[in-house]
Amino acid sequence: MNSLSVQVLDRLTLGLVPPDEMWRTTACKRLDTLTKPLGSLGRLEDLAAQLVAIRRERSAEAITKAVYIFAADHGITAEGVSAYPREVTQQMVLNFLADGAAINVLARLHRVSLRVVDVGVDADLPSHSALLAHKVAKGSRNMLHEPAMTDDELARAMTVGELIAANALASGETMIAIGEMGIGNTTSASAITCALTGAAPALATGRGTGIKADAYTQKIAVVEAILDRHDGRGPLDILQTIGGLEIAAMTAMMIAAARNRMILVVDGFISTAAAALAVALAPDVRGFLVAGHRSQEPGHNLLLNYLNLTPLLDLGMRLGEGTGAVLAMPILESALALYQQMATFASAGVSEESQ
Amino acid sequence: MNSLSVQVLDRLTLGLVPPDEMWRTTACKRLDTLTKPLGSLGRLEDLAAQLVAIRRERSAEAITKAVYIFAADHGITAEGVSAYPREVTQQMVLNFLADGAAINVLARLHRVSLRVVDVGVDADLPSHSALLAHKVAKGSRNMLHEPAMTDDELARAMTVGELIAANALASGETMIAIGEMGIGNTTSASAITCALTGAAPALATGRGTGIKADAYTQKIAVVEAILDRHDGRGPLDILQTIGGLEIAAMTAMMIAAARNRMILVVDGFISTAAAALAVALAPDVRGFLVAGHRSQEPGHNLLLNYLNLTPLLDLGMRLGEGTGAVLAMPILESALALYQQMATFASAGVSEESQ
Repeated sequence: MNSLSVQVLDRLTLGLVPPDEMWRTTACKRLDTLTKPLGSLGRLEDLAAQLVAIRRERSAEAITKAVYIFAADHGITAEGVSAYPREVTQQMVLNFLADGAAINVLARLHRVSLRVVDVGVDADLPSHSALLAHKVAKGSRNMLHEPAMTDDELARAMTVGELIAANALASGETMIAIGEMGIGNTTSASAITCALTGAAPALATGRGTGIKADAYTQKIAVVEAILDRHDGRGPLDILQTIGGLEIAAMTAMMIAAARNRMILVVDGFISTAAAALAVALAPDVRGFLVAGHRSQEPGHNLLLNYLNLTPLLDLGMRLGEGTGAVLAMPILESALALYQQMATFASAGVSEESQ
Repeated sequence: MNSLSVQVLDRLTLGLVPPDEMWRTTACKRLDTLTKPLGSLGRLEDLAAQLVAIRRERSAEAITKAVYIFAADHGITAEGVSAYPREVTQQMVLNFLADGAAINVLARLHRVSLRVVDVGVDADLPSHSALLAHKVAKGSRNMLHEPAMTDDELARAMTVGELIAANALASGETMIAIGEMGIGNTTSASAITCALTGAAPALATGRGTGIKADAYTQKIAVVEAILDRHDGRGPLDILQTIGGLEIAAMTAMMIAAARNRMILVVDGFISTAAAALAVALAPDVRGFLVAGHRSQEPGHNLLLNYLNLTPLLDLGMRLGEGTGAVLAMPILESALALYQQMATFASAGVSEESQ
């Protein structure tokens, strides 16, 4: 009999198909009739075609945007891998609920609804309209000594992601930014990067929230030790042994949301680690992904290459929370609005190329 | 006695001072108190500090955005340098007024007021609330045979830019995107790029709206011939001999708007050529500039390097009209909103770095 997490995965991938190539072709043809030199909108044209292929409609309904911040603590923080104490996870969740964090400002400015998903914060959090309470455990286990999650915990965390995707569908949301908060989670993302891409720990490990030189050396040693202990045999095993509760929920959310034909805007290093696992588990997810930005974390580039994604923004950010993804949303909306609303050469009476 | 254009320039630069370094320092200090790891917002932090230094206020009033599209025809089109006929300038101006062009879609989506400035379109245009009628001539002269403008035409075109900046100030606009429309104007921008940076014509000349190989070779030869004919002795002379009516108005607008402490969002190749001339004429303009995007035109990069500007977006666009500048405006608004609205570590009760 399959393990619990394999059962969840089978359920998530049922009926998943890639974006529609016929719609992409239709979109490309229409783009060439609009009043602009051929191809002069550059990547905005590719984006518009991707969004039309995902949504399977010529005149897509207005996009409804949301950002989900998956939060959890990490057992690996016991090894001194972060510049901030573990308590900052819960403090930042409270900051999100009080509307004071960077992601709150960006979500408000760009009219993106924001929800925090507690998958495993090590605190009893107050109830709040923006908090989706799905705590699986008070943090993952210390992956230096045991798998980050038991099979049961992994299956439950993945089910959280599945539920969130179902709620997003019911809310009519069509463009989703996937962010996270979890002190210690860049260590997990570095280990996942090494396991998926074969990169050396020193290349896939960065300074996270900003550790100093000694702690950085220690962090690389921790990632090496984690990888020595767990020789992942496949993406689900990698997720269970060296992932995290929020990463498991994000991975499952992306697969389920792709099945629901949602536009998935990936954020930085941890969000992209979840996306890479989602694609490793279900390759058809790839076509639903848009990389919002390139993070300053060195491992992020390795994951973007692994996924063959080129980010829309490259502004030296390394904050997480979904900030890079939400900042990219106006570009996505622009691409779709141009596609929908520009005049054609014929309708505007503009002469076409004379050559 | 000075020429007319020198008199206009003297008037434009009177009282121009660079952004305020004390305000920049104040902004940087505040950024370090906000609930995020130090420096983790990357370039958004530099941008926020620049905007505060330009506006000289801690809690800047809401930004009011506008895009001005300077339109004119070019005598050089007689040499077959564009893929589109000269009539497309007026046709696209009508498309702007009918709300059908790419810049209309982006301006509407991002709530940016849009005005078209007729500095020299070769047509009698209808009156329209969005059209500012300041025609100096029905196009510039063929710079292959004579200076693009007489001293009187240059002075009048610069005065148009001065007027537009005054109107923008009176309208309470604080963030201005500078776009253009003018069939043939990439040829002028290429020549300006060579004259300012010393680059070879083949490196500074691109395919503009999309000319084919033969026409491209011809365009490079035209740029070479233009530069042979006019050996510019200074930026004002370069502007007069190988510029254009819209480029002269944009250059003057940028100097006058900088004096009014406006945030100037530069668009692509032609807009940046005007910015480079503005900085060559008045170096203090430099601190007011933000490069919206990197155009696919090869000469654009030479100008960005000349100005030491790193663009916010790099999406392979080459449309002009102000599209790349307006697309960058949500990033600028984001930077300022984060600066103004994020909670501090103290106010949110979040622990600071433990190292």
